[in-house]
Amino acid sequence: MTTLNQQIIVKSFPTGWITEDNFSLISSPIPSIKNGQVLIKNDWLSLDPYMRGRLSNAKSYAKGVEIGQVMVGGTVGTVIESLSPKFKVGDQVAGSTGWQLYAVAEDIAIRKIDTSKVPSSAHLGPIGMPGVTAWKGLIVICDPKPGETVVVDAATGAVGSVVGQLAKARGCRVVGIAGGKAKCDYAINELNLDACIDHKSPNFQDDIKAALPQGIDCLYENVGGMVFDTLLSLMNPFARIAVCGLVSEYNVEPYSYTNVRSILINRLKIQGFIVNDDQSNIPGIMKSLYEELVNGRLKYKETIAHGLENAPKALIGLLKGENFGKQLVKLS
Amino acid sequence: MTTLNQQIIVKSFPTGWITEDNFSLISSPIPSIKNGQVLIKNDWLSLDPYMRGRLSNAKSYAKGVEIGQVMVGGTVGTVIESLSPKFKVGDQVAGSTGWQLYAVAEDIAIRKIDTSKVPSSAHLGPIGMPGVTAWKGLIVICDPKPGETVVVDAATGAVGSVVGQLAKARGCRVVGIAGGKAKCDYAINELNLDACIDHKSPNFQDDIKAALPQGIDCLYENVGGMVFDTLLSLMNPFARIAVCGLVSEYNVEPYSYTNVRSILINRLKIQGFIVNDDQSNIPGIMKSLYEELVNGRLKYKETIAHGLENAPKALIGLLKGENFGKQLVKLS
Repeated sequence: MTTLNQQIIVKSFPTGWITEDNFSLISSPIPSIKNGQVLIKNDWLSLDPYMRGRLSNAKSYAKGVEIGQVMVGGTVGTVIESLSPKFKVGDQVAGSTGWQLYAVAEDIAIRKIDTSKVPSSAHLGPIGMPGVTAWKGLIVICDPKPGETVVVDAATGAVGSVVGQLAKARGCRVVGIAGGKAKCDYAINELNLDACIDHKSPNFQDDIKAALPQGIDCLYENVGGMVFDTLLSLMNPFARIAVCGLVSEYNVEPYSYTNVRSILINRLKIQGFIVNDDQSNIPGIMKSLYEELVNGRLKYKETIAHGLENAPKALIGLLKGENFGKQLVKLS
Repeated sequence: MTTLNQQIIVKSFPTGWITEDNFSLISSPIPSIKNGQVLIKNDWLSLDPYMRGRLSNAKSYAKGVEIGQVMVGGTVGTVIESLSPKFKVGDQVAGSTGWQLYAVAEDIAIRKIDTSKVPSSAHLGPIGMPGVTAWKGLIVICDPKPGETVVVDAATGAVGSVVGQLAKARGCRVVGIAGGKAKCDYAINELNLDACIDHKSPNFQDDIKAALPQGIDCLYENVGGMVFDTLLSLMNPFARIAVCGLVSEYNVEPYSYTNVRSILINRLKIQGFIVNDDQSNIPGIMKSLYEELVNGRLKYKETIAHGLENAPKALIGLLKGENFGKQLVKLS
């Protein structure tokens, strides 16, 4: 076989915003596999905000990538060789095999996905880790009751769009925050949110207050910075906050928060989390999300970049909010 | 009876620091009581940081005092008249009867206290609301395990001194933060803390880091501002924070926090609370604290102002950290 693998490796860590120069595209032989392994031809690469944290030596919730190594990332692909009894050629699988066209994976590190009723890419979005992340923050941490007001920012993103729909299904009033009119229109018209406020508007502070006459009972926080600080001032007594991301702060100096006292005044419960902290409940959540999707109760949107070589640019765009819905790279 | 009552009423709300001009001392007749009420001669008045929040129209966790009304506050005193079957003349009682020498109270709003083995003033300190507040934040919210590192600021205050001792009794390493060498010496030598750092020192940032080689697992936060923001950066993964007070911010513009991202990076659990949010467990906690005190396992210190007329000055001192231990006013 003369086909070569293509991989994107981390050449350097960014200071501030990621640039395309932080990555290199290289070619290498397609490796052979050993017992218990499979060779996967990746079809889709998932791009996610957490990736910024991996490109750093700073302390974060997971160890960073090392310079010279293949960039990390979730993938779905097709098994093209197998030395594992668990997988056969042609199986569709999801895993975290990184930014490369072909990957060797241990059979315990990947999972078979059902693509009979849903596109395989959905396993990187609403029924994959973003969907599970949404579920854990909203249902496990915030636990909103019918009639309560839920706010979610990055409301049309891969995580936020699932949060909003799950909260609506629970009978909550849901107010989204998103960047720009097109995203807000989508949040209201397609995701069925009760309101959506554009954080890019100069009137954001007034608009969000006007949209929350009853205050906030549950906040699903993805964005951080000015948006989070503003929302802190609008929390109700005994409100809950799930801190899933602070994407507006990943490339810049830390934001200065002036509404921290709301934690005391309103006796808030705040919890930061990442999806993998407790893996025991992930399969059950994935099953529930799959049923929601198959039954048409979970809408989603994708922004697709084409070709591995465009992954760095697409990641930069994601961190700037240029994507609309789940950001993917189509590899084949 | 020609004796007059003396009361301190709220004349105006402060902007920034409280001044003595915000209060007026007035004389008035001692009121008569109705069925179900008692007349109390107050012996001790408790001064507490929460009082700053009551002197304001701003949203806080409790309704403010109204201009012209008697200032609120916890008290212990002696029943001198009773029209309730629950109390007899001579009973020692605790309640929240405000800044006055004589008070009429409904019998359901006060509780009898046992002063056979402890001074009555302790019922305003380690075995009263400050002690219960310490217990709830530390034991119920933070729930530290043996060997974990607990940090408490305002470590020699009415609440903090109980927090530190309870944490030591649980087998934790306890680092206190206090203002000045005398308080830190007391924290180490009398309260038995493992270390105590002076937040007034120009080396505070370095000193506190050096005192926490294993980071922080549980933070009991009383102070806010620079101290809290610094501690946020030193939290361990899955650490817990009980936010009981932010006393450094009560009289000034909100502090700007730059380490909020630690919530996400370390998946912190943070909860703001006040002692009365759940009253069901208060009697049981008070009983436990009483046993600790009687058995010599709970030390405490008091700063005593003499005479109702000195209460405003003493409250101002408390908010500036000039007290050492529990700040009381002796009324008789």
